[in-house]
Amino acid sequence: MRETGPEGARGCAPGGIHETMTPIGIAVIGAGYWGPNLVRNAQATAQFEVRYLCDLDVARARRVLGKYSTVEVSDSLAQVLGDPSVQAVAIATPAGTHYEVASLALDAGKHVLVEKPLAASYADGSKLVSLAAERGRVLMLDHTYCYTPAVQRLRELVRSGQLGTLQYVDSVRINLGLVQPDIDVLWDLAPHDLSILDAILPDGVLPVAVAAQGSDPIGAGQACVAYLSVQLSNGAMAHAHVNWLSPTKIRTTIVGGSARTVVWDDLNPSQRLAIYDRGVDRTDPTQLGDAERTRALVSYRVGDMVAPALPEGEALRGVMSEFAAAITEARAPLTDGKAGLRVLALLEAATESLYSGGSFVPVYLEEIAR
Amino acid sequence: MRETGPEGARGCAPGGIHETMTPIGIAVIGAGYWGPNLVRNAQATAQFEVRYLCDLDVARARRVLGKYSTVEVSDSLAQVLGDPSVQAVAIATPAGTHYEVASLALDAGKHVLVEKPLAASYADGSKLVSLAAERGRVLMLDHTYCYTPAVQRLRELVRSGQLGTLQYVDSVRINLGLVQPDIDVLWDLAPHDLSILDAILPDGVLPVAVAAQGSDPIGAGQACVAYLSVQLSNGAMAHAHVNWLSPTKIRTTIVGGSARTVVWDDLNPSQRLAIYDRGVDRTDPTQLGDAERTRALVSYRVGDMVAPALPEGEALRGVMSEFAAAITEARAPLTDGKAGLRVLALLEAATESLYSGGSFVPVYLEEIAR
Amino acid sequence: MRETGPEGARGCAPGGIHETMTPIGIAVIGAGYWGPNLVRNAQATAQFEVRYLCDLDVARARRVLGKYSTVEVSDSLAQVLGDPSVQAVAIATPAGTHYEVASLALDAGKHVLVEKPLAASYADGSKLVSLAAERGRVLMLDHTYCYTPAVQRLRELVRSGQLGTLQYVDSVRINLGLVQPDIDVLWDLAPHDLSILDAILPDGVLPVAVAAQGSDPIGAGQACVAYLSVQLSNGAMAHAHVNWLSPTKIRTTIVGGSARTVVWDDLNPSQRLAIYDRGVDRTDPTQLGDAERTRALVSYRVGDMVAPALPEGEALRGVMSEFAAAITEARAPLTDGKAGLRVLALLEAATESLYSGGSFVPVYLEEIAR
Amino acid sequence: MRETGPEGARGCAPGGIHETMTPIGIAVIGAGYWGPNLVRNAQATAQFEVRYLCDLDVARARRVLGKYSTVEVSDSLAQVLGDPSVQAVAIATPAGTHYEVASLALDAGKHVLVEKPLAASYADGSKLVSLAAERGRVLMLDHTYCYTPAVQRLRELVRSGQLGTLQYVDSVRINLGLVQPDIDVLWDLAPHDLSILDAILPDGVLPVAVAAQGSDPIGAGQACVAYLSVQLSNGAMAHAHVNWLSPTKIRTTIVGGSARTVVWDDLNPSQRLAIYDRGVDRTDPTQLGDAERTRALVSYRVGDMVAPALPEGEALRGVMSEFAAAITEARAPLTDGKAGLRVLALLEAATESLYSGGSFVPVYLEEIAR
Repeated sequence: MRETGPEGARGCAPGGIHETMTPIGIAVIGAGYWGPNLVRNAQATAQFEVRYLCDLDVARARRVLGKYSTVEVSDSLAQVLGDPSVQAVAIATPAGTHYEVASLALDAGKHVLVEKPLAASYADGSKLVSLAAERGRVLMLDHTYCYTPAVQRLRELVRSGQLGTLQYVDSVRINLGLVQPDIDVLWDLAPHDLSILDAILPDGVLPVAVAAQGSDPIGAGQACVAYLSVQLSNGAMAHAHVNWLSPTKIRTTIVGGSARTVVWDDLNPSQRLAIYDRGVDRTDPTQLGDAERTRALVSYRVGDMVAPALPEGEALRGVMSEFAAAITEARAPLTDGKAGLRVLALLEAATESLYSGGSFVPVYLEEIAR
Repeated sequence: MRETGPEGARGCAPGGIHETMTPIGIAVIGAGYWGPNLVRNAQATAQFEVRYLCDLDVARARRVLGKYSTVEVSDSLAQVLGDPSVQAVAIATPAGTHYEVASLALDAGKHVLVEKPLAASYADGSKLVSLAAERGRVLMLDHTYCYTPAVQRLRELVRSGQLGTLQYVDSVRINLGLVQPDIDVLWDLAPHDLSILDAILPDGVLPVAVAAQGSDPIGAGQACVAYLSVQLSNGAMAHAHVNWLSPTKIRTTIVGGSARTVVWDDLNPSQRLAIYDRGVDRTDPTQLGDAERTRALVSYRVGDMVAPALPEGEALRGVMSEFAAAITEARAPLTDGKAGLRVLALLEAATESLYSGGSFVPVYLEEIAR
Repeated sequence: MRETGPEGARGCAPGGIHETMTPIGIAVIGAGYWGPNLVRNAQATAQFEVRYLCDLDVARARRVLGKYSTVEVSDSLAQVLGDPSVQAVAIATPAGTHYEVASLALDAGKHVLVEKPLAASYADGSKLVSLAAERGRVLMLDHTYCYTPAVQRLRELVRSGQLGTLQYVDSVRINLGLVQPDIDVLWDLAPHDLSILDAILPDGVLPVAVAAQGSDPIGAGQACVAYLSVQLSNGAMAHAHVNWLSPTKIRTTIVGGSARTVVWDDLNPSQRLAIYDRGVDRTDPTQLGDAERTRALVSYRVGDMVAPALPEGEALRGVMSEFAAAITEARAPLTDGKAGLRVLALLEAATESLYSGGSFVPVYLEEIAR
Repeated sequence: MRETGPEGARGCAPGGIHETMTPIGIAVIGAGYWGPNLVRNAQATAQFEVRYLCDLDVARARRVLGKYSTVEVSDSLAQVLGDPSVQAVAIATPAGTHYEVASLALDAGKHVLVEKPLAASYADGSKLVSLAAERGRVLMLDHTYCYTPAVQRLRELVRSGQLGTLQYVDSVRINLGLVQPDIDVLWDLAPHDLSILDAILPDGVLPVAVAAQGSDPIGAGQACVAYLSVQLSNGAMAHAHVNWLSPTKIRTTIVGGSARTVVWDDLNPSQRLAIYDRGVDRTDPTQLGDAERTRALVSYRVGDMVAPALPEGEALRGVMSEFAAAITEARAPLTDGKAGLRVLALLEAATESLYSGGSFVPVYLEEIAR
């Protein structure tokens, strides 16, 4: 990569749009933790014209916008959905309300971007997917990580075959996190790992079963530490450790392949991805079972590591660009409703496993596969 | 800690022994991967007099000793066990032979230090423990990590109550490791994590159930990647990730407590232990169940981190000192046969879980508790 | 520190101001690299009312503000300075223009916040300091780093005596940086290190001489790699390595004291400050000169390390708060014109050294000391 | 690199020597800090037969060898040098005695390996080089770092032109180090950096001047913190920071080139070398001087980083192999007496600069160039 600017100049360019196109009117619903980020990134996306920030707490919405903004504030979802200049909404309300808000928006003919998880249950999520299909509207999940340069490179490395056969995925997402009153740590944090897994899996490889173990050592009323194992249809396993109680923040995912293995450390901006040309191979699988020979037949590859130069830039900008593009081109976005539904199926199975001894619970994703 | 020498001078002092005491004659059995370390550390321990290095492959044993050594080489276990100048043996033969070699040694009246795992099965291990008791001989496990300054400090922090209530233990031990022909990654690596857990648990807290999930993505004939969840009697959970296929080496254990949490990174010599005064507390558990109040009742503590100065020094030197002291003082060593047995019980339950869907399998350790 | 929110909640609170106070009208001059940050932080500071963003390139200024802003754009400095609703200006124009713009602003009775360096020469800087004094206006340097929690803690540790006697300061600030057309790497980067040094030095300790060595290995026409040594009046030395050509970014400062030493790694958000209770002491300086005894008289202290919990938050917010407070309270800000002048004196001496063989060049800062 | 063993198996193989060759008899002189390492590595080198460990303090020499060794102890240098079975000596006595011991050894017809620095002065070092030449004996410096895989790769990268034009070298070697009674921190630590620089410089590039600044903040009677700048004949600069007072240990060297830059972190075993395809170029040097165009003409290259797989293994083993090979093949070793002399010339110039205001002092190395 040869450029004529230093690292600061490598940021994502704002999406170039033809000057003659009319921007898409968008409203952001919810001015809580994530809403301000949606407002900021929608504003920075030329394809959108931000019309409203909508929240029951108008004062909070005003504080989010600040006193120098021309964006309108509203506490009425009906007003916003009734405004024909609004073609799209971005929903950042509590998870329990996603189904209702998104249904109303789709019913009103709006395109919908919704925070993860898609809904509080697979059944509700499924209805939203059907509704969007009926109305011919875009339903997109804000699986933010899938729009980072790191995950996009990971996806390319796995799906192009450069990693060889996928051998394992191991993810750690721990932090001194906000203990949620209504959802456990699995529903809070694992959607990130599951949506990333969903995005990078090669075609034809699907999760087939999920096991989860967890504990609630502070008496919060729900699991604060949890472990998730996902069996994949090719025999490999994905695993995630999610934890609200860790004093240190770790966000690392290892994607092991027969040819290469990638370590993604999201907290190391100078080296987010490290691609190792290292691994273990069996030279002749037909000899399996003869213990004496096994060791001789296993060979180790200890090659170099490459840390690719990746563009910096806010992932949410990429989410907004993809949302706009999907609307304009009338196509499914990368993280569409079905992707959200696959994540919900895994979460529900994980919950079932968590409360029934931790054994593997099967999932059936063929019908909602990409 | 104020000293009159720089860091190089902080190493473990060789055990001071009265000049008039006769050293304990010791033989090392097995000149493979670990045997040379046993020889070197036994030689550096004043309480021992190394008599033999014993291996079926005499040439290998000679190579290990080098051409400047006065230590004798033997390929005959009978010769070594029959030599009355040998009072103790350190066994570093393959795991499958531990039972036989240790039995013969105990029968011959020798004190025994054995590599982990104690034996290939709980039943065999149990016989060794009984045999040692009958013969009045020391049976000690080389749970090396338990003799590192880091684990000794961890043990002290947990058992003294400085960490508060134990909330979780999370351990990652991954590496491009030697794929073993006869044992899977659980039996190869998890004994480290289980013996460390065994050493640090406070009195009265015991493992009660074990779940394991694993996979063999390279067709080695046994699990190469595995996850182990251990339910503790106080409601907390310990978890270990063991993996032979990782291109990067990680050896990190987090021990979470209600008052403090310790992160042990064994690969960071300048900061192996980090003690965080951070955590999440519930201020009033009687209010449990009212979602609105839960968040208000959860409080976060974000205090300083302390990385204690720890002495450097080879852990195996501590193993040897403890072995000598247990023999001299006719007492059980810190990592005695029962500790080895508890680890075996957990490994057997893990294997059962691994092959039966990954659910929790109960263990009953009360009778072999410390 | 006990709080009722997780780490995300620890950010700097916006300055609380009484509702009845009239905000201070402010204009930002310069919409280049740094200007947008000044706009954003001034907007987030309740004590300010942002009136203008002024730049010769109006289109650029408009792009900086975005299409949702109510802030006015102007390409006329005269218009801005002539507007009585503007009481303060923040100047982020090229360094060569600081003197002219700041003079005009002070002449127009405005309070001035100016980017580092204060001016292109000590002589010009000195005139600005005098002018501000004459007009009774605040002249403040945007020495941003001095408002980070890390430097504020460093300052407190050094000046309170907790570090003991200051022994050395070592700073590394290297990066693949923007090679400047008009100033060398010393004038570009060393102002950061010199202003931090200026802020943390205890009363009575002043720089007395400066040496600099540098090179221009890419033929840029000015030094791209440089080293700066500053002799302090207490016998200690401060040193800075500044470099535009490094592929890795390092921003680390070590402040060594007789009692404690602090390592500040600005790129490690989870552990920016590490306070080491380690060092070397001479037990009896009267024995100096007897080589045999020297070693015996030197003692080493190897104690714990503490990484204090520090609030997160954008330093520029602190700059804005201090600027507003200095205006309101009619007092000198922490980084006043004199601080800027001391930095200029050191930069000029460094340049002299750089071009005359690298030897120490004396500086006389007593008259412009704090 | 494809191998049939895991990382543990990648160590340096013991030098393969034909069984029929008679080993070279060697004695180690000095049983202090470094002597034990020389003994251990000479013993592990098949080409050597270790005859003596010689020290005035016989008890210390015996302790170093331990009670299982067949190596002879002596307190008489005359005895050792008079023994015809000794063909080579390795000298690890205090620096002030190197000249005398090495002279006697060369006079006795022995090959000599000597710790850095070669002698206490350039004049003495020069006499040793002449003496070795007269006697036709190998005189080798134990510049240990030059035999690490990292420096060998660095040397190859620079000298093969893969780094492009050498732009700068920056070295940091700081630690809580043993304050020496007789030599300052420059003479104690900078020989490492200067010998590494000497080893990696391309043919035709030589140091031409040296500047040094230092301080003694603990009153030790000599510099404990020092900075060394070395002007190279191609216009680039090398710099070293050496420091006995730092609570953290840093051993990092950056070697900047026009095509690539290498960062060597000796304390990061998993990634000692990082080769960055990043840098700053001027596209047309003929345009120099036009400030407006300078920025446009500077281009930035932000490519990938490669961390090459390097063999592990003790560098001192490589020193011993090279010493044996130089003796056997009757050739100069990589780090011969002249290399030691070049380092001495730089150290003496550095001392002169340190005590005379810190300006550059010229050195003339042409006559003792490789």
